[in-house]
Amino acid sequence: MVTTRETKRAELRERLIDAAENELQNKGLSGLKARDVTARAGCALGALYNAVEDLDMLVLEVNARTLANLGAALKAALPGPDASPVDSLQALASTYIDFAIENRRLWLALFEHRLPEDRAVPERHRQSHAVLIDGIAAPLAQLRPDLAQEALSLRARTVFAAVHGVVHLSLQGQFVGVPLPDLKAEVRALVEIMARRAA
Amino acid sequence: MVTTRETKRAELRERLIDAAENELQNKGLSGLKARDVTARAGCALGALYNAVEDLDMLVLEVNARTLANLGAALKAALPGPDASPVDSLQALASTYIDFAIENRRLWLALFEHRLPEDRAVPERHRQSHAVLIDGIAAPLAQLRPDLAQEALSLRARTVFAAVHGVVHLSLQGQFVGVPLPDLKAEVRALVEIMARRAA
Repeated sequence: MVTTRETKRAELRERLIDAAENELQNKGLSGLKARDVTARAGCALGALYNAVEDLDMLVLEVNARTLANLGAALKAALPGPDASPVDSLQALASTYIDFAIENRRLWLALFEHRLPEDRAVPERHRQSHAVLIDGIAAPLAQLRPDLAQEALSLRARTVFAAVHGVVHLSLQGQFVGVPLPDLKAEVRALVEIMARRAA
Repeated sequence: MVTTRETKRAELRERLIDAAENELQNKGLSGLKARDVTARAGCALGALYNAVEDLDMLVLEVNARTLANLGAALKAALPGPDASPVDSLQALASTYIDFAIENRRLWLALFEHRLPEDRAVPERHRQSHAVLIDGIAAPLAQLRPDLAQEALSLRARTVFAAVHGVVHLSLQGQFVGVPLPDLKAEVRALVEIMARRAA
């Protein structure tokens, strides 16, 4: 039986995640402050530490939500089993870019949030990243029937990370990043090559 | 004429950069604290703000030093004008991985340090990143004589970012990253394809 106390705690948790998501969207990770989150959630500062441990854990909860949304977008983008593997990979990459641009600060937080080095990311949160590569394995297997399961899973990570790297440096506005107006065309060219020779 | 006062200030600056480099190496960006840096440099906390503005600017100075070292390593790795462009690109990628592994926390700081969103990175610091792509243009031009200067410069960024992405997610220990023991082989395969078809 769920007590009123537990229900209230779960509600507060949701409100805090909503508030942190909003703050992240508006100010980015470097501008995120516990005091702003609790003010937005309408609770005392101490309530945060009671409901979700601390601000780092709250960011992991927002990231889990972002990853679930991104995973759903990638899944919806797959053109179906009759599509060519190249088209499937292009659809995934293109959707990945769109999501990153539309949710820039939330997406950056997925990769830029770091716990202090003496703290490990809880396994549940680590595994929520799997949605990033889930869709790649099937088209890659069609392109590389010679690769065994383990080699394929490794190559899916490499293909994802290559595309991700181009998108990340571009959206970070790094000096060596591809300028944003060229991003889609450059990633398309990269995926084209990796798909043809399947990295 | 350089006054004693200016000399002392320059010396203090160097000492602070040395100390911050050491602290970054030992504790990583998330563990960097102004108080530890000044304690190591043997000066008062306030001296940091006097000599290098603030901790963010001090990290940019350490990053500039890391980039200079990385640039020198990449330049030294190039096998000379008679080497094939594929070999040149493989040598650059392999040296990049070695440097990243041997200087993990300093290297991560190059990409993970973020100024607050309302502050721009000084242009001098942005441009110090150019060493990351300087060596790529020449071999790429040999592989793709059909590409004009601007398209080549763009493609060099894409090739760098793809390799960087694989190295970054791997060294960050991300769930979707390539496991460290497989990193060199996966990057070698990626560069092989990108060199053959030049992305």
